[in-house]
Amino acid sequence: TQQLLSEPSQEARRAPARPCRVSSADRKVRKGLMARSLEDLLRKVRDVFKLKGKSFTLVLEEDGTIVETEEYFQALAGDTVFMILQKGQKWQPQAEQQGTRYQL
Amino acid sequence: TQQLLSEPSQEARRAPARPCRVSSADRKVRKGLMARSLEDLLRKVRDVFKLKGKSFTLVLEEDGTIVETEEYFQALAGDTVFMILQKGQKWQPQAEQQGTRYQL
Repeated sequence: TQQLLSEPSQEARRAPARPCRVSSADRKVRKGLMARSLEDLLRKVRDVFKLKGKSFTLVLEEDGTIVETEEYFQALAGDTVFMILQKGQKWQPQAEQQGTRYQL
Repeated sequence: TQQLLSEPSQEARRAPARPCRVSSADRKVRKGLMARSLEDLLRKVRDVFKLKGKSFTLVLEEDGTIVETEEYFQALAGDTVFMILQKGQKWQPQAEQQGTRYQL
């Protein structure tokens, strides 16, 4: 039924919630969230970053690796920083030398 | 039987799944995958990067070393970045200075 489909999976419900940091693509906003699963994180990111109805991907802030499987999410360290990429946004390395002159 | 042939090997099933990062040859797409073995990784890369029926090789992103034995795969560190080279594609070093001007 429809209700069953919208419930989190058994596995996702069993996993403990863990802290995740989530950054906007321009690295100007970074928020801390608790998530039990990738599914849970995606749902919370959608709420917190006001992305309802918008399509976006979560990547690793460090190198732009796309995180799209539950398995891979579970294998990541607790202090992982994620980045939200909306349609048309591209991951860019952090411009450490340039500081605030960094542009997306 | 056909079913037996498509099952992962005994050895591959016993090894724990580990996180792998896999990059396209132009370094524009990088995805995180879990794999128990080189065989498993190749199968997942084929699915995830839509390479069915195409021939490709996995190399180390860092220096283009071809990874073709199970043993060597198992000896690699968990954070290894692999690169997919399809027929005609060549490994190129990352152009760090040029940033987005990097061309394949």
